Amino acid sequence: MSALRPDEKTYQQLRTQYEAFQARGLKLDLTRGKPAAGQLDLSNELLSLPGADDYTAEGATDTRNYGGLQGLLEVRRLFSAMMGAAPENVVAANNSSLALMHDTIVYALLKGTCDSTAPWSQQEISFLCPVPGYDRHFKICQDYGIRMIPVPLYEDGPDMDQVEKLVAADASIKGMWCVPKYSNPTGSVYSDAVVERLAAMKTAAPDFRLYWDNAYAVHHLTEEAVEIANILEASQRHGNGNRPFVFASTSKITLPGSGLALFAASGDNVKWLLARLTPRTIGPDKINQLRHVRFLKEPAAIARLMEKHRKLIAPKFAKVLEIFDQHLANVPDVSWTRPKGGYFISLEVPRGCAKRVIELAKDAGVVLTPAGATHPYGKDPEDRTIRIAPTFPTLKEVAEAAEGVAQCVLLASAVVAV
Amino acid sequence: MSALRPDEKTYQQLRTQYEAFQARGLKLDLTRGKPAAGQLDLSNELLSLPGADDYTAEGATDTRNYGGLQGLLEVRRLFSAMMGAAPENVVAANNSSLALMHDTIVYALLKGTCDSTAPWSQQEISFLCPVPGYDRHFKICQDYGIRMIPVPLYEDGPDMDQVEKLVAADASIKGMWCVPKYSNPTGSVYSDAVVERLAAMKTAAPDFRLYWDNAYAVHHLTEEAVEIANILEASQRHGNGNRPFVFASTSKITLPGSGLALFAASGDNVKWLLARLTPRTIGPDKINQLRHVRFLKEPAAIARLMEKHRKLIAPKFAKVLEIFDQHLANVPDVSWTRPKGGYFISLEVPRGCAKRVIELAKDAGVVLTPAGATHPYGKDPEDRTIRIAPTFPTLKEVAEAAEGVAQCVLLASAVVAV
Repeated sequence: MSALRPDEKTYQQLRTQYEAFQARGLKLDLTRGKPAAGQLDLSNELLSLPGADDYTAEGATDTRNYGGLQGLLEVRRLFSAMMGAAPENVVAANNSSLALMHDTIVYALLKGTCDSTAPWSQQEISFLCPVPGYDRHFKICQDYGIRMIPVPLYEDGPDMDQVEKLVAADASIKGMWCVPKYSNPTGSVYSDAVVERLAAMKTAAPDFRLYWDNAYAVHHLTEEAVEIANILEASQRHGNGNRPFVFASTSKITLPGSGLALFAASGDNVKWLLARLTPRTIGPDKINQLRHVRFLKEPAAIARLMEKHRKLIAPKFAKVLEIFDQHLANVPDVSWTRPKGGYFISLEVPRGCAKRVIELAKDAGVVLTPAGATHPYGKDPEDRTIRIAPTFPTLKEVAEAAEGVAQCVLLASAVVAV
Repeated sequence: MSALRPDEKTYQQLRTQYEAFQARGLKLDLTRGKPAAGQLDLSNELLSLPGADDYTAEGATDTRNYGGLQGLLEVRRLFSAMMGAAPENVVAANNSSLALMHDTIVYALLKGTCDSTAPWSQQEISFLCPVPGYDRHFKICQDYGIRMIPVPLYEDGPDMDQVEKLVAADASIKGMWCVPKYSNPTGSVYSDAVVERLAAMKTAAPDFRLYWDNAYAVHHLTEEAVEIANILEASQRHGNGNRPFVFASTSKITLPGSGLALFAASGDNVKWLLARLTPRTIGPDKINQLRHVRFLKEPAAIARLMEKHRKLIAPKFAKVLEIFDQHLANVPDVSWTRPKGGYFISLEVPRGCAKRVIELAKDAGVVLTPAGATHPYGKDPEDRTIRIAPTFPTLKEVAEAAEGVAQCVLLASAVVAV
């Protein structure tokens, strides 16, 4: 290990700095990717929409009453471009895309997909999990006993050599978690080549599904609005049209507690999902869908709204990076991502240090996502990855927290090295 | 069979009357228990609530952001009396109580209840289904391969002798559908004695659950606001505290497409449900919950709102009953319910006639719920039960439709008798 090797004096200096930080008695929370109140204010208009006389959607639909399982046509049209699918290939649901992901897994477990010969629950099944990844994805697998197989995630997507080899050889692999743009937590963006290989690869399981969680489709942090290849088109082109389940939501566009979740897929998959939803519900909250249509109006307006979000949160990301650059630039085995979008910075610390950094931070009043959360079963085998979520606190608090985290990293690295 | 035995002349008269009705070219839909537009208007205030500056719930909760899996405390308090449970024993969810019922079954199938030794899906399981009953309950069972065992439903509840015998003998019986008040479609109200026996009975399955769908808890059609015994209290008293899952919603209080679904149960069951919901979602739409609190305010206001609903729909029920009394009073083997609440009238026609009546009605432009829908697997073994849903059409349309249905019953009965 090439970690910092301070003498005892340096270590004591770091200890003193940390204790000074600790003495400030801060209470900061960097655990979750939550929008700040100022971002929520951008959508306050929703709180009085659609308005007392406005409840009629296209086709003379009374949105107040039952029905409309697939969601309002105007919602599906509004998000068609973002989802990369025609409106008839989009399903608009209630407030949680996580719930949609969960439910499609549950349906597959109990009934199989439209390409399955048996329910998934009748055999051992596995999901590929690019790591570091999103803890809530992993939690679903863990909860239902789905074996998780980690694969490395790089800047341009998962290690495709490994992925191709695994899915070709192992018919138990039924799914793969993908956050293809501004990935949680690394900010990785899947390259066109990676998307193409995911669409084209041979899978031993005929009912293999890409769980394509495009959670940050329009959530840019720079003026470069990164675009990724269309997984639905690519899969279709390779004869694997049923492979992707595409998910997104307005949780970080409008209001997290009361947004819309969206699903897009092939005609067969949409038909399958609607058949699965039929015993469950008569339809989604269409008034909330109409409310969103009235507020968001058109894709260009969504882009303008996201620009306002960017102006609020990009400085917080910049501040964290500035402080890390200042304090950690020359620390061996410490690195961090510089995301162009999304909600997270991923900080890599020396092997065996992540838990200690998070403990030290907690003792100084800065709560971080638990160590290991970015990996299946909550276990980061190298104990290296820390997820930083800078959006919710104020800029001043983010600066304080980042300073504190930097101190903790320095101290933990020094302890390892001593 | 003691059915009407008309001579050829009478038959021809009935045929002529039916054809005259048919010639009117009506287009009426009595299939589903949907509120009419005028009922929805009663809740139009919701369309502009909570208002642009109003998003803070108790405990300084920003309802716009993530979190709050159990639902807002003020919602759970508001519906505490209606659910017959303390606020901490209530879960407030998104817009569909059917979805909650479905999901609790899915969780039990995949993971078992808090009293199960194995997931339900690992064995053959059965549900008791009082008949006539609600087609959407039966559809869930059918979809997941849960065997349905019909038991007769009387005015005061299911045949408890049969129920007790079945659940005591058969450990595969894990659940029972109950609509305890103003049952769909018969309007049956479970007597205190029936509730007591359901709470007390011995079940072979230790993880047996009553799916207590109290869909019409406050949905009275007469000035007598019928009350039923509290199943949670009774079960607790008999040492079967985990037995009931109580469900309700505001679908027919406020707006069907965008109401709130509610669940109430023992502490263990609530803990179990929240643990099951945790991988699925970060929380329900809290703004819609706040919206409902602002609009409904208190239980007395809910009662006043329901009184307005009653004034709109009771005349429709009265009209159907008046017309049936007028045309069908002396027809052998024809009878119908006189519900004190709920959304349906159940019409019993001579054995083997229901399908024919529904066909005749359809050919005359009156669409009724498909024959058999009130029974498991869509099969009414006696082909006798027809569900009438008079709330959605106007009073004039309801009158026309009821006239038509009466004609169809007379004609079909005559054919059977000839």
